[in-house]
Amino acid sequence: MRVALGVSYNGQAYSGWQSQPSGNTVQDHLEAALGRFATQKVATICAGRTDAGVHGLMQVVHFDTGLQRAPFSWVRGTNTFLPPDIAVQWAQPVPDAFHARACAVARRYAYVLLQSPVRPSVEAGRVGWVFHELDGQAMQDAVQHLLGEHDFSSFRASACQAKSPVKTLHRIAITRRGPANGPSLHGCAPCYWRFEFEGNAFLHHMIRNIMGCIVAIGQGLYPPQWMRQVLDARSRDAAAPTFSPDGLYFLGPVYAPEWGLPTRTAAYDWLP
Amino acid sequence: MRVALGVSYNGQAYSGWQSQPSGNTVQDHLEAALGRFATQKVATICAGRTDAGVHGLMQVVHFDTGLQRAPFSWVRGTNTFLPPDIAVQWAQPVPDAFHARACAVARRYAYVLLQSPVRPSVEAGRVGWVFHELDGQAMQDAVQHLLGEHDFSSFRASACQAKSPVKTLHRIAITRRGPANGPSLHGCAPCYWRFEFEGNAFLHHMIRNIMGCIVAIGQGLYPPQWMRQVLDARSRDAAAPTFSPDGLYFLGPVYAPEWGLPTRTAAYDWLP
Repeated sequence: MRVALGVSYNGQAYSGWQSQPSGNTVQDHLEAALGRFATQKVATICAGRTDAGVHGLMQVVHFDTGLQRAPFSWVRGTNTFLPPDIAVQWAQPVPDAFHARACAVARRYAYVLLQSPVRPSVEAGRVGWVFHELDGQAMQDAVQHLLGEHDFSSFRASACQAKSPVKTLHRIAITRRGPANGPSLHGCAPCYWRFEFEGNAFLHHMIRNIMGCIVAIGQGLYPPQWMRQVLDARSRDAAAPTFSPDGLYFLGPVYAPEWGLPTRTAAYDWLP
Repeated sequence: MRVALGVSYNGQAYSGWQSQPSGNTVQDHLEAALGRFATQKVATICAGRTDAGVHGLMQVVHFDTGLQRAPFSWVRGTNTFLPPDIAVQWAQPVPDAFHARACAVARRYAYVLLQSPVRPSVEAGRVGWVFHELDGQAMQDAVQHLLGEHDFSSFRASACQAKSPVKTLHRIAITRRGPANGPSLHGCAPCYWRFEFEGNAFLHHMIRNIMGCIVAIGQGLYPPQWMRQVLDARSRDAAAPTFSPDGLYFLGPVYAPEWGLPTRTAAYDWLP
């Protein structure tokens, strides 16, 4: 039988999702825990790999097993063997036609950015940071250029293994959280910016590279239309440096409703 | 001159606020960083000590120094020498009459609790956890017994050094965050509960001991009026076990507005 799992993790301590000889990736820990619970080797396929330091609120994986277990046994049993910052959220039997990667019609990410004269502390490793005031309207104008189907080569890491650099971005939502007339600390009212991305698929480092450009525009280093120039250049050299992984969260894949899989966990409400 | 600082920290890695021979407390790290920046020993006095594992969103300290520095230099300079999960948020010169502990007319704490069949992961170490559904009305009814001036001996740790067990609780606010009709995971709709406490002062472990009783009542182990019985017993034996430090945040002291000190930081908006 085939089983799908929803998995949440804080990526700070891990070398990304995908299995490595070091053994210190989220996939390594998950498969080791599943193996201990199932007392047999379990191989998983995920909806979307994440980089070192990137967090997952609802990664989805599937695996095949001969074991018959109640769905919640997979959750509780596996969590017993996982580190405290990784947990299976749900388990559900799925038809053999379900494939965590191939069936995902879209993927959603959020980037959380602290704007403050002072670096993060309580949220260290879980937010990006800028100490300049960002221009929300300029960032809104800039990201319009990215919506729809484009060749995103300018935002693609050299190590990217995707077959094609052409992807479709459905939605980028930018919201500012924190009081507009809030308390000023040393000349700047601290706030969080949240950037939500939905697209059919993403290239390696694509969101972090886009974030680098958004922040450059938000700080006034370039006008909003610069985003179009970067996109049209189809060259990594045209874009800003890759932004920090700290504030990046894989919110999860989108599947057709017929699969009947859960779409979110409590941790969604934790993000500003 | 006397300087006041606002300090935020994630308490997970530290043995609480107060200086210890181990050197691994927030005060030890803060004083070491201040000392390196000032190139002289700096001794701080704080508004409210926190236990091991408890977080601070706005601890306030004061210290005396002969150095003349621009306020933001104290922030930036000290942060250079602090670990990533501790940061000075603001610095402000204050009159010699200001005393971080003695001038605090109240103190505010929040406890964040994850209610879910699945343990925390992304928020590990930063939320408490219950896997039973809690009864909000029962908890609301229970905490009414605690408001006002009482002898809180039943909620006092044996190691507590306070002169008197009589304290005044001004406010306890309980809010549920998360969709009431949200996605159900294995029979339970995950949510966060937030408990906010304001009082003139708190005994050692007082909030964690109160939380233990609130949760016991929320789970239906005792009726709301049991809280009154526990309070009246004036004995630690009457109360529930001390609850986990993980979800406890010192929001900060309250000072008279004439001191003109900042009252909150961006991190307030991070908590559910």
